[in-house]
Amino acid sequence: MDVFVPGTLFHIALYQPEIPSNTGNIGRSCVALGCVLHLIHPLGFDVSEKACRRAGLDYWPRLRVLEHRDWGVYRRATPGARRWLFSTRADRSIFDADLRPGDHLVFGRESSGVPPRIHEQFAGARLALPMLPGERSLNLATAVCAAAYEGLRQCLARGDLSLDAAGRVAGPAAEGGATAEALQ
Amino acid sequence: MDVFVPGTLFHIALYQPEIPSNTGNIGRSCVALGCVLHLIHPLGFDVSEKACRRAGLDYWPRLRVLEHRDWGVYRRATPGARRWLFSTRADRSIFDADLRPGDHLVFGRESSGVPPRIHEQFAGARLALPMLPGERSLNLATAVCAAAYEGLRQCLARGDLSLDAAGRVAGPAAEGGATAEALQ
Repeated sequence: MDVFVPGTLFHIALYQPEIPSNTGNIGRSCVALGCVLHLIHPLGFDVSEKACRRAGLDYWPRLRVLEHRDWGVYRRATPGARRWLFSTRADRSIFDADLRPGDHLVFGRESSGVPPRIHEQFAGARLALPMLPGERSLNLATAVCAAAYEGLRQCLARGDLSLDAAGRVAGPAAEGGATAEALQ
Repeated sequence: MDVFVPGTLFHIALYQPEIPSNTGNIGRSCVALGCVLHLIHPLGFDVSEKACRRAGLDYWPRLRVLEHRDWGVYRRATPGARRWLFSTRADRSIFDADLRPGDHLVFGRESSGVPPRIHEQFAGARLALPMLPGERSLNLATAVCAAAYEGLRQCLARGDLSLDAAGRVAGPAAEGGATAEALQ
Protein backbone atom coordinates (compact mmCIF):
# COMPACT_ATOMS: atom_id res chain seq x y z
CA MET A 1 0.00 0.00 0.00
CA ASP A 2 1.29 3.41 -0.91
CA VAL A 3 1.86 5.87 1.84
CA PHE A 4 2.28 9.58 1.49
CA VAL A 5 5.45 11.12 2.76
CA PRO A 6 4.13 14.45 3.96
CA GLY A 7 5.80 17.03 1.81
CA THR A 8 4.43 20.49 1.56
CA LEU A 9 1.25 21.05 -0.39
CA PHE A 10 1.21 24.82 0.09
CA HIS A 11 2.64 27.49 2.33
CA ILE A 12 -0.12 29.50 4.01
CA ALA A 13 1.22 32.95 4.94
CA LEU A 14 -0.84 35.10 7.31
CA TYR A 15 0.10 38.77 7.38
CA GLN A 16 -0.37 40.15 10.90
CA PRO A 17 -3.37 37.99 11.83
CA GLU A 18 -5.51 39.47 14.57
CA ILE A 19 -7.92 36.79 15.79
CA PRO A 20 -6.43 33.78 17.57
CA SER A 21 -9.28 31.36 16.84
CA ASN A 22 -8.84 32.01 13.12
CA THR A 23 -5.15 31.18 13.26
CA GLY A 24 -6.00 28.08 15.29
CA ASN A 25 -8.50 26.90 12.70
CA ILE A 26 -6.07 27.66 9.88
CA GLY A 27 -3.43 25.60 11.67
CA ARG A 28 -5.89 22.72 11.78
CA SER A 29 -6.50 23.01 8.02
CA CYS A 30 -2.75 23.12 7.43
CA VAL A 31 -2.26 19.88 9.33
CA ALA A 32 -5.09 18.16 7.45
CA LEU A 33 -3.64 19.16 4.08
CA GLY A 34 0.11 19.14 4.66
CA CYS A 35 0.62 22.89 4.48
CA VAL A 36 3.25 24.95 6.28
CA LEU A 37 1.90 27.96 8.20
CA HIS A 38 3.82 31.26 8.17
CA LEU A 39 2.84 33.88 10.75
CA ILE A 40 4.13 37.33 9.87
CA HIS A 41 4.47 39.55 12.94
CA PRO A 42 3.28 41.60 14.67
CA LEU A 43 0.38 39.32 15.61
CA GLY A 44 -2.73 40.48 17.39
CA PHE A 45 -2.25 37.73 19.98
CA ASP A 46 0.27 35.31 21.41
CA VAL A 47 0.29 31.92 19.68
CA SER A 48 0.29 30.31 23.09
CA GLU A 49 -3.09 31.94 23.72
CA LYS A 50 -5.81 29.59 24.75
CA ALA A 51 -8.18 30.65 21.96
CA CYS A 52 -5.59 29.85 19.33
CA ARG A 53 -4.72 26.45 20.75
CA ARG A 54 -8.32 25.57 21.47
CA ALA A 55 -9.29 26.14 17.85
CA GLY A 56 -6.25 24.16 16.79
CA LEU A 57 -7.13 21.49 19.36
CA ASP A 58 -4.57 18.77 19.51
CA TYR A 59 -3.47 19.53 15.96
CA TRP A 60 -1.08 22.32 16.89
CA PRO A 61 1.82 20.06 17.92
CA ARG A 62 1.77 18.50 14.44
CA LEU A 63 1.69 21.86 12.70
CA ARG A 64 4.75 23.10 10.88
CA VAL A 65 4.66 26.78 11.74
CA LEU A 66 7.25 29.49 11.12
CA GLU A 67 7.09 32.96 12.62
CA HIS A 68 8.68 35.94 10.86
CA ARG A 69 9.44 39.30 12.43
CA ASP A 70 8.00 41.24 9.51
CA TRP A 71 7.11 41.02 5.83
CA GLY A 72 10.68 41.61 4.68
CA VAL A 73 12.03 38.85 6.86
CA TYR A 74 9.38 36.45 5.55
CA ARG A 75 10.26 37.38 1.95
CA ARG A 76 13.96 36.90 2.51
CA ALA A 77 13.39 33.60 4.33
CA THR A 78 11.48 32.22 1.35
CA PRO A 79 13.38 33.40 -1.74
CA GLY A 80 12.10 32.39 -5.13
CA ALA A 81 8.71 31.36 -3.85
CA ARG A 82 5.65 31.63 -6.11
CA ARG A 83 3.25 33.82 -4.14
CA TRP A 84 -0.44 34.59 -4.55
CA LEU A 85 -2.32 37.23 -2.59
CA PHE A 86 -5.97 36.66 -1.73
CA SER A 87 -7.84 39.91 -1.92
CA THR A 88 -11.25 41.32 -2.70
CA ARG A 89 -9.38 43.63 -5.12
CA ALA A 90 -8.15 40.83 -7.32
CA ASP A 91 -6.91 40.32 -10.85
CA ARG A 92 -8.80 37.08 -11.33
CA SER A 93 -10.75 34.29 -9.76
CA ILE A 94 -8.91 31.53 -7.95
CA PHE A 95 -10.58 29.15 -10.39
CA ASP A 96 -8.47 30.72 -13.17
CA ALA A 97 -5.23 30.49 -11.24
CA ASP A 98 -2.54 27.88 -11.64
CA LEU A 99 -1.74 26.78 -8.10
CA ARG A 100 1.14 24.37 -7.77
CA PRO A 101 2.66 22.41 -4.89
CA GLY A 102 4.93 24.61 -2.85
CA ASP A 103 3.15 27.85 -3.75
CA HIS A 104 2.64 30.47 -1.05
CA LEU A 105 -0.95 31.57 -0.46
CA VAL A 106 -0.85 34.93 1.30
CA PHE A 107 -3.74 36.34 3.31
CA GLY A 108 -3.96 39.81 4.88
CA ARG A 109 -5.27 40.96 8.24
CA GLU A 110 -8.86 40.23 9.10
CA SER A 111 -9.64 43.92 9.42
CA SER A 112 -7.66 45.49 6.62
CA GLY A 113 -5.86 43.03 4.37
CA VAL A 114 -2.32 44.05 3.42
CA PRO A 115 -1.00 47.61 3.02
CA PRO A 116 -0.68 49.14 -0.48
CA ARG A 117 3.09 48.59 -0.68
CA ILE A 118 2.56 44.84 -0.32
CA HIS A 119 -0.53 44.79 -2.49
CA GLU A 120 1.51 46.29 -5.33
CA GLN A 121 4.06 43.47 -5.13
CA PHE A 122 1.33 41.08 -6.23
CA ALA A 123 0.20 42.75 -9.47
CA GLY A 124 -1.11 39.94 -11.67
CA ALA A 125 -1.09 37.46 -8.80
CA ARG A 126 -4.06 38.66 -6.76
CA LEU A 127 -6.81 36.09 -6.50
CA ALA A 128 -10.41 36.30 -5.40
CA LEU A 129 -12.81 33.77 -4.04
CA PRO A 130 -15.85 34.86 -6.06
CA MET A 131 -18.88 36.09 -4.14
CA LEU A 132 -22.25 37.56 -4.96
CA PRO A 133 -22.27 41.20 -6.05
CA GLY A 134 -22.19 43.48 -3.04
CA GLU A 135 -20.70 40.90 -0.65
CA ARG A 136 -17.24 41.64 0.58
CA SER A 137 -15.82 39.10 2.89
CA LEU A 138 -15.55 35.67 4.37
CA ASN A 139 -14.17 34.65 7.69
CA LEU A 140 -10.39 34.35 7.24
CA ALA A 141 -10.16 30.71 8.31
CA THR A 142 -12.97 29.63 6.00
CA ALA A 143 -11.40 31.53 3.08
CA VAL A 144 -8.02 29.85 3.67
CA CYS A 145 -9.62 26.40 3.72
CA ALA A 146 -11.58 27.06 0.52
CA ALA A 147 -8.44 28.35 -1.20
CA ALA A 148 -6.33 25.41 -0.08
CA TYR A 149 -8.91 22.91 -1.33
CA GLU A 150 -9.18 24.63 -4.70
CA GLY A 151 -5.41 24.51 -4.88
CA LEU A 152 -5.42 20.82 -4.00
CA ARG A 153 -8.01 20.21 -6.71
CA GLN A 154 -5.81 21.94 -9.27
CA CYS A 155 -2.81 19.86 -8.23
CA LEU A 156 -4.87 16.67 -8.49
CA ALA A 157 -6.27 17.66 -11.89
CA ARG A 158 -2.77 18.36 -13.15
CA GLY A 159 -1.46 15.05 -11.78
CA ASP A 160 0.98 16.64 -9.34
CA LEU A 161 -0.75 14.61 -6.64
CA SER A 162 -3.25 11.78 -6.55
CA LEU A 163 -5.76 10.25 -4.18
CA ASP A 164 -5.08 6.75 -2.91
CA ALA A 165 -7.65 3.95 -2.78
CA ALA A 166 -8.91 5.27 0.54
CA GLY A 167 -9.40 8.74 -0.93
CA ARG A 168 -6.43 10.20 0.90
CA VAL A 169 -3.99 12.67 -0.60
CA ALA A 170 -1.09 10.62 -1.89
CA GLY A 171 2.25 11.56 -3.34
CA PRO A 172 2.99 12.61 -6.88
CA ALA A 173 1.15 10.36 -9.29
CA ALA A 174 4.02 10.47 -11.76
CA GLU A 175 6.40 9.00 -9.24
CA GLY A 176 4.07 6.25 -8.18
CA GLY A 177 4.46 7.04 -4.51
CA ALA A 178 6.84 5.54 -2.01
CA THR A 179 5.87 2.22 -0.51
CA ALA A 180 5.83 1.54 3.18
CA GLU A 181 8.61 -0.95 2.64
CA ALA A 182 10.76 1.58 0.85
CA LEU A 183 10.57 3.87 3.82
CA GLN A 184 11.81 1.37 6.36
CA MET B 1 -24.60 45.89 -16.59
CA ASP B 2 -25.90 42.50 -15.59
CA VAL B 3 -26.95 42.04 -12.03
CA PHE B 4 -27.48 38.79 -10.25
CA VAL B 5 -30.89 38.13 -8.80
CA PRO B 6 -29.92 36.16 -5.73
CA GLY B 7 -31.34 32.73 -6.21
CA THR B 8 -30.12 29.82 -4.19
CA LEU B 9 -26.74 28.37 -4.97
CA PHE B 10 -26.93 25.60 -2.39
CA HIS B 11 -28.77 24.69 0.77
CA ILE B 12 -26.38 24.16 3.66
CA ALA B 13 -27.98 21.87 6.23
CA LEU B 14 -26.38 21.59 9.67
CA TYR B 15 -27.50 18.62 11.75
CA GLN B 16 -27.59 19.59 15.42
CA PRO B 17 -24.66 22.03 15.34
CA GLU B 18 -23.01 22.53 18.70
CA ILE B 19 -20.68 25.52 18.45
CA PRO B 20 -22.26 28.94 17.90
CA SER B 21 -19.23 30.60 16.30
CA ASN B 22 -19.17 27.87 13.65
CA THR B 23 -22.80 28.45 12.75
CA GLY B 24 -22.12 32.19 12.68
CA ASN B 25 -19.22 31.75 10.27
CA ILE B 26 -21.25 29.37 8.13
CA GLY B 27 -24.03 31.97 7.97
CA ARG B 28 -21.47 34.47 6.72
CA SER B 29 -20.34 32.07 3.97
CA CYS B 30 -23.97 31.47 3.03
CA VAL B 31 -24.59 35.19 2.59
CA ALA B 32 -21.44 35.61 0.49
CA LEU B 33 -22.44 32.77 -1.82
CA GLY B 34 -26.22 32.93 -1.90
CA CYS B 35 -26.87 29.77 0.07
CA VAL B 36 -29.82 29.03 2.35
CA LEU B 37 -28.90 27.77 5.82
CA HIS B 38 -30.94 25.00 7.45
CA LEU B 39 -30.45 24.43 11.18
CA ILE B 40 -31.76 21.07 12.33
CA HIS B 41 -32.64 21.05 16.03
CA PRO B 42 -31.81 20.46 18.77
CA LEU B 43 -28.97 22.98 18.60
CA GLY B 44 -26.19 23.23 21.15
CA PHE B 45 -26.90 26.95 21.54
CA ASP B 46 -29.47 29.63 20.88
CA VAL B 47 -29.10 31.37 17.54
CA SER B 48 -29.50 34.67 19.34
CA GLU B 49 -26.33 33.86 21.27
CA LYS B 50 -23.67 36.50 21.10
CA ALA B 51 -20.99 34.13 19.82
CA CYS B 52 -23.14 33.10 16.88
CA ARG B 53 -24.06 36.64 15.89
CA ARG B 54 -20.55 37.95 16.47
CA ALA B 55 -19.11 35.40 14.04
CA GLY B 56 -21.88 36.25 11.61
CA LEU B 57 -21.28 39.96 12.26
CA ASP B 58 -23.70 42.14 10.39
CA TYR B 59 -24.29 39.40 7.86
CA TRP B 60 -26.92 37.59 9.89
CA PRO B 61 -29.83 39.88 8.96
CA ARG B 62 -29.23 39.10 5.28
CA LEU B 63 -29.05 35.36 5.88
CA ARG B 64 -31.88 33.15 4.72
CA VAL B 65 -32.07 30.66 7.57
CA LEU B 66 -34.66 27.99 8.28
CA GLU B 67 -34.89 26.07 11.54
CA HIS B 68 -36.33 22.56 11.65
CA ARG B 69 -37.49 20.71 14.76
CA ASP B 70 -35.72 17.50 13.77
CA TRP B 71 -34.31 15.57 10.83
CA GLY B 72 -37.69 14.25 9.74
CA VAL B 73 -39.23 17.70 9.68
CA TYR B 74 -36.31 18.99 7.60
CA ARG B 75 -36.70 16.10 5.16
CA ARG B 76 -40.43 16.63 4.79
CA ALA B 77 -39.98 20.40 4.40
CA THR B 78 -37.60 19.86 1.48
CA PRO B 79 -39.10 17.03 -0.57
CA GLY B 80 -37.32 15.91 -3.69
CA ALA B 81 -34.07 17.66 -2.78
CA ARG B 82 -30.76 16.27 -3.99
CA ARG B 83 -28.75 15.77 -0.80
CA TRP B 84 -25.09 15.06 -0.15
CA LEU B 85 -23.63 14.15 3.22
CA PHE B 86 -20.13 15.29 4.10
CA SER B 87 -18.39 12.63 6.11
CA THR B 88 -14.97 11.20 6.79
CA ARG B 89 -16.58 7.84 5.95
CA ALA B 90 -17.35 8.75 2.36
CA ASP B 91 -18.06 7.04 -0.92
CA ARG B 92 -15.97 9.45 -2.94
CA SER B 93 -14.14 12.74 -3.03
CA ILE B 94 -16.11 15.95 -3.46
CA PHE B 95 -13.98 16.52 -6.56
CA ASP B 96 -15.74 13.53 -8.17
CA ALA B 97 -19.22 14.70 -7.23
CA ASP B 98 -21.70 16.45 -9.45
CA LEU B 99 -22.94 19.37 -7.38
CA ARG B 100 -25.72 21.40 -8.93
CA PRO B 101 -27.53 24.59 -7.97
CA GLY B 102 -30.20 23.88 -5.39
CA ASP B 103 -28.43 20.82 -3.96
CA HIS B 104 -28.43 20.30 -0.20
CA LEU B 105 -25.01 19.92 1.42
CA VAL B 106 -25.53 18.22 4.78
CA PHE B 107 -23.01 18.38 7.63
CA GLY B 108 -23.18 16.51 10.93
CA ARG B 109 -22.42 17.62 14.46
CA GLU B 110 -18.94 18.88 15.24
CA SER B 111 -18.40 16.10 17.78
CA SER B 112 -20.04 13.10 16.18
CA GLY B 113 -21.37 13.70 12.66
CA VAL B 114 -24.77 12.15 12.01
CA PRO B 115 -26.19 8.97 13.59
CA PRO B 116 -26.08 5.68 11.64
CA ARG B 117 -29.75 5.81 10.62
CA ILE B 118 -29.12 9.09 8.79
CA HIS B 119 -25.74 8.01 7.47
CA GLU B 120 -27.44 5.05 5.80
CA GLN B 121 -29.84 7.32 3.93
CA PHE B 122 -26.88 8.73 2.05
CA ALA B 123 -25.39 5.56 0.60
CA GLY B 124 -23.66 6.61 -2.62
CA ALA B 125 -23.97 10.30 -1.78
CA ARG B 126 -21.37 10.65 0.96
CA LEU B 127 -18.58 13.01 0.06
CA ALA B 128 -15.18 13.64 1.57
CA LEU B 129 -12.89 16.61 1.54
CA PRO B 130 -9.65 14.66 0.99
CA MET B 131 -6.98 14.94 3.66
CA LEU B 132 -3.61 13.43 4.35
CA PRO B 133 -3.60 9.85 5.62
CA GLY B 134 -4.21 9.76 9.34
CA GLU B 135 -5.88 13.17 9.53
CA ARG B 136 -9.51 13.13 10.45
CA SER B 137 -11.13 16.47 10.61
CA LEU B 138 -11.45 20.11 9.75
CA ASN B 139 -13.26 22.80 11.60
CA LEU B 140 -16.91 22.60 10.55
CA ALA B 141 -17.13 26.17 9.24
CA THR B 142 -13.97 25.82 7.17
CA ALA B 143 -15.20 22.51 5.72
CA VAL B 144 -18.54 24.05 4.72
CA CYS B 145 -16.81 26.94 2.98
CA ALA B 146 -14.45 24.64 1.08
CA ALA B 147 -17.36 22.44 0.01
CA ALA B 148 -19.49 25.38 -1.11
CA TYR B 149 -16.63 26.79 -3.20
CA GLU B 150 -15.96 23.46 -4.85
CA GLY B 151 -19.67 23.26 -5.60
CA LEU B 152 -19.62 26.76 -7.05
CA ARG B 153 -16.65 25.81 -9.21
CA GLN B 154 -18.52 22.79 -10.55
CA CYS B 155 -21.54 24.95 -11.36
CA LEU B 156 -19.33 27.49 -13.15
CA ALA B 157 -17.51 24.77 -15.10
CA ARG B 158 -20.82 23.32 -16.18
CA GLY B 159 -22.16 26.73 -17.21
CA ASP B 160 -24.99 26.74 -14.68
CA LEU B 161 -23.58 30.06 -13.45
CA SER B 162 -20.99 32.50 -14.67
CA LEU B 163 -18.77 35.25 -13.31
CA ASP B 164 -19.45 38.80 -14.45
CA ALA B 165 -16.80 41.25 -15.62
CA ALA B 166 -16.08 42.18 -12.00
CA GLY B 167 -15.54 38.53 -11.09
CA ARG B 168 -18.81 38.29 -9.18
CA VAL B 169 -21.13 35.30 -9.29
CA ALA B 170 -23.72 36.08 -11.93
CA GLY B 171 -26.86 34.32 -12.99
CA PRO B 172 -27.14 31.39 -15.36
CA ALA B 173 -24.87 31.93 -18.33
CA ALA B 174 -27.39 30.33 -20.66
CA GLU B 175 -30.02 32.90 -19.79
CA GLY B 176 -27.75 35.88 -20.23
CA GLY B 177 -28.66 37.38 -16.88
CA ALA B 178 -31.34 39.90 -16.06
CA THR B 179 -30.53 43.53 -16.60
CA ALA B 180 -31.03 46.17 -13.98
CA GLU B 181 -33.64 47.73 -16.20
CA ALA B 182 -35.56 44.50 -16.53
CA LEU B 183 -35.88 44.32 -12.79
CA GLN B 184 -37.45 47.70 -12.32
